[in-house]
Amino acid sequence: MLRMSTLFLRTLREDPADAEVPSHRLLVRAGYIRRSSPGVYSWLPLGLKVLAKVEAVVREEMDAAGCQEVHFPALQPREPYEATGRWTDYGPNLFRLKDRKDADYLLAPTHEEAFTLLVKDLYSSYKDLPITLYQIQTKYRDEARPRAGLIRGREFIMKDAYSFDLDHEGLEASYQAQRDAYQRLFDRLGLDYVIVSAHSGAMGGSRSEEFLCPVEVGEDTYVRSAGGYAANVEAVTTPIPPPVPFDDAPAPHVEDTPNTPTIDSLVDLANERYPRPDRPWTAADTLKNVVLTVTPPGGKRELLIVGVPGDRDVDLRRAEAALSPAVIEPATEADLTKVKALVPGYIGPGVGEERVFNKAGVRYLTDPRVAEGTRWITGANAQGKHVFDIVAGRDFTADGTIDIAEVRAGDPAPDGSGPLELARGVEIGHIFQLGTKYSEALGLNVLDADGKQRTVVMGSYGLGVTRVLAVLAELNHDEHGLVWPAQVAPYHVQVVATGKDDAVFVAAEGVAEALTALGVEVCYDDRRAASPGVKFADAELLGAPFIVVVGRGLADGLIEVKTRRTGDVENVAIADAPARVAELVKAALGA
Amino acid sequence: MLRMSTLFLRTLREDPADAEVPSHRLLVRAGYIRRSSPGVYSWLPLGLKVLAKVEAVVREEMDAAGCQEVHFPALQPREPYEATGRWTDYGPNLFRLKDRKDADYLLAPTHEEAFTLLVKDLYSSYKDLPITLYQIQTKYRDEARPRAGLIRGREFIMKDAYSFDLDHEGLEASYQAQRDAYQRLFDRLGLDYVIVSAHSGAMGGSRSEEFLCPVEVGEDTYVRSAGGYAANVEAVTTPIPPPVPFDDAPAPHVEDTPNTPTIDSLVDLANERYPRPDRPWTAADTLKNVVLTVTPPGGKRELLIVGVPGDRDVDLRRAEAALSPAVIEPATEADLTKVKALVPGYIGPGVGEERVFNKAGVRYLTDPRVAEGTRWITGANAQGKHVFDIVAGRDFTADGTIDIAEVRAGDPAPDGSGPLELARGVEIGHIFQLGTKYSEALGLNVLDADGKQRTVVMGSYGLGVTRVLAVLAELNHDEHGLVWPAQVAPYHVQVVATGKDDAVFVAAEGVAEALTALGVEVCYDDRRAASPGVKFADAELLGAPFIVVVGRGLADGLIEVKTRRTGDVENVAIADAPARVAELVKAALGA
Repeated sequence: MLRMSTLFLRTLREDPADAEVPSHRLLVRAGYIRRSSPGVYSWLPLGLKVLAKVEAVVREEMDAAGCQEVHFPALQPREPYEATGRWTDYGPNLFRLKDRKDADYLLAPTHEEAFTLLVKDLYSSYKDLPITLYQIQTKYRDEARPRAGLIRGREFIMKDAYSFDLDHEGLEASYQAQRDAYQRLFDRLGLDYVIVSAHSGAMGGSRSEEFLCPVEVGEDTYVRSAGGYAANVEAVTTPIPPPVPFDDAPAPHVEDTPNTPTIDSLVDLANERYPRPDRPWTAADTLKNVVLTVTPPGGKRELLIVGVPGDRDVDLRRAEAALSPAVIEPATEADLTKVKALVPGYIGPGVGEERVFNKAGVRYLTDPRVAEGTRWITGANAQGKHVFDIVAGRDFTADGTIDIAEVRAGDPAPDGSGPLELARGVEIGHIFQLGTKYSEALGLNVLDADGKQRTVVMGSYGLGVTRVLAVLAELNHDEHGLVWPAQVAPYHVQVVATGKDDAVFVAAEGVAEALTALGVEVCYDDRRAASPGVKFADAELLGAPFIVVVGRGLADGLIEVKTRRTGDVENVAIADAPARVAELVKAALGA
Repeated sequence: MLRMSTLFLRTLREDPADAEVPSHRLLVRAGYIRRSSPGVYSWLPLGLKVLAKVEAVVREEMDAAGCQEVHFPALQPREPYEATGRWTDYGPNLFRLKDRKDADYLLAPTHEEAFTLLVKDLYSSYKDLPITLYQIQTKYRDEARPRAGLIRGREFIMKDAYSFDLDHEGLEASYQAQRDAYQRLFDRLGLDYVIVSAHSGAMGGSRSEEFLCPVEVGEDTYVRSAGGYAANVEAVTTPIPPPVPFDDAPAPHVEDTPNTPTIDSLVDLANERYPRPDRPWTAADTLKNVVLTVTPPGGKRELLIVGVPGDRDVDLRRAEAALSPAVIEPATEADLTKVKALVPGYIGPGVGEERVFNKAGVRYLTDPRVAEGTRWITGANAQGKHVFDIVAGRDFTADGTIDIAEVRAGDPAPDGSGPLELARGVEIGHIFQLGTKYSEALGLNVLDADGKQRTVVMGSYGLGVTRVLAVLAELNHDEHGLVWPAQVAPYHVQVVATGKDDAVFVAAEGVAEALTALGVEVCYDDRRAASPGVKFADAELLGAPFIVVVGRGLADGLIEVKTRRTGDVENVAIADAPARVAELVKAALGA
């Protein structure tokens, strides 16, 4: 039994200044966590209890899925990460350090390399496979912008699992087993989630899926269609439209378009001076050429020009995913002045001739919608001039296609399952079919049944344990505080003694003891100096599923049992209270 | 139930090349741990199970002692460690790193600063005290010479607790409570230990004690007397002898002592050329002047000369403790040539006049045994010359006293409790009365009952969790492998099926299942291809307290139950086996 009088806790009435989202605000105010440095948190007693319960559910479901737990050091030597390229690819997201002998180390963001080497170290035959190993471990990622408390931290706890199979069919089965385990464990935690196709990013490999928890504060945008398509926006692909006939298209012609550096000003001027006979020009008729800078890890900042329909922007996160690993930024004025041929606001692919900026080593890629035969208004690479009726495939051909324009509600799902809708979520799990990226780089082979060396096929499966806790808080709170699901609550019942009367405290302590004896986890607010108002406010802020109040009703032999989530209150005879509360707790636990 | 056929395990018949001590050899060979980088280990499934059991005992005893668990980041910002001086004092033992914004961080070796700041953050009144908080957490220390596997690693798990009291009496009580908890938990783990007075080192504070486990491979030397004195050698103090009358002492006289750069050669020559009338000269009659270099963290390497009786060496670890924080090394030839006045082999304090090397800024300290009135033969600061009958306090006075000569068996205990004996051990716990070092540096005050600010008085209490595991392996093994105490064994019983007969496997599986149903933790060796010899060897190497063999005897309805530690074998009827084995396990657990 916890006693409030001795519990290491100080609840706060004010929101912490740096907390942007409800879960962060409440976890700090209720004394579950405390900021140590940006994106790095200390765990106080109540936070640690919730964390242990989340970890236990994860562990149980991993074990039930036949996975075996191991534990790797956070401190990893550089060499294996060098061999797979991640030492460089992670760029500034990696915490790097040197030991006293000047050897390079890192604080691991994930452990693909370490797991691969361990299996290589111990196993050598197809008979040893398949195997899936996991750990629950502290990870490090030097985020540029840690935010939302535990949701995007720089030190965080992950469950990461890795599967090892002889072939791709085996991987499919291992992947499916993890996918199923995730569904079971998120269900047990009462977490709503969607599974979306995802982009593999720096991790490599082929197929990957994300488990997203749909909450407003999420920084991941995903799409879904009524027909069942679901994907992270980074992973949405735009179907390439069939070629459009262009026999009747007029030849391209350059027109004066003074003072039209923006799409809006261009469309207005075009409708005024060069109106279409059939309908007004719209932004979708223009080809906007966006200049980006691409900086690969440890590499040079280079320009890239991307042509997208003028009614769409480039989505920088989709660009980062498509061009991974690299930092993508909009070109600055300084970047633009480096390439003389670029006339800001009037950039275009040019007609026929070699592209002016190609000579300067700048590539030109277009959106899939810029398909063969499509006609555009676009910059003529001269101040105040645009070219009209320029036809893709006739007048110009890009250096390639890139699918990084923003995805919009109403866009068609790539699988034809209807229009997309957009929503926001937090990634709580990400599972990858890695294939052989890591086993090839680190030489993990086994002998197959025919005595031949085979490269082991791997999967990796991440789950953000501390993030799951934050999302649980995000989904389970009201204006008074946290409302924990019984499965993860730091304790099931808060027993509150109110008033100054000794008899109240004696009775409350008796109830708390009886509940404890029944296996119920209790926090007993035994503070003598705190007012009933403070005690009620604390009980609601702390978020136990049930609050038992021993106070005024005691004269009539009654105590109050409140269900935190619904606010329902029952008055129960004190003799019956422990059994009744234990029954409520049991029901809430689904036991 | 674990099954050997699927358990992620590969036992090794050969000792790993880098393993110096039995626990390290066996933990690697039996597949409990695996080296990741120097002094950094990965935990395999069986190792993790033992670790979890050790942690559980530690946690239970901490909780029972009224301590509350929290958890701090390993990644700590520089500033608080700067405020207490530890950022510098830890020297090269600290892993330091920078984040992407060039801010300084460290991987914490212990968390005094973080705990102090947390309590300061939340508490402000004497009513909040006393409180003791703890964590079980991964710690980092960039050891110059990681050794002996888990015994001295660079990443390791510690339980560290911190007490906060209003005054020194409170600290005494908190300290005693931790001390008692340590005794209970080490007793539960079946660990032999001695509690010795210790030196506080970089931690600061007044009183400190170490819990040492007496094992041969230990790198700590401690002393004890029959009368009950016990101390780490670093903490042994030499009583200052009473002054000796020197009225009858002749005046000091310089003599030719060619070719006597060592104490032995000097004693031989003195006995030959300048014999004593009463007895031969011995090394104890000479005053040896040892030149050390002292390098404080971030400071300059400076010379220090220490005079000790010629029959004793300087103990560098005692020197490091006495001069902490600093790196202490014997002076090299290069160091010596920097001070012209030094004549190697013939250094001495000089008679009367200002000491030659004092002018060069070199201090001269002597052992407490060089008490007033004691007479010596020592160097005359000239090649081939020594001075005889030089009397401390008459002819020279040192700049101070330093107690860093080696401690030897037979030396008197400082408390008069008899001669000392020496032994070796591994430090498994270290408890400190810190006092106000950290609370002062970081401003942790509370208001007392009179409304006055009081500086909080602290204690810190470390316990090496991974080291305890290693020491358990060190104390519990034989030539065949590990012999775990039941309390921490990865499982209680190894069920071994031998032969090729299906009936054997069916019966063995039945026994394994029946034991599991009785709450016994079982590993079932269900491998079909492995020979009985391999299976027996593995069972003994892995170290379960009981081994059940189902094989040849099955024809007569019998199975074999072996107690790993004693080698005792019982033949038990198969129907009775589960109950009998469960009974043995229960007894071994002391339940």
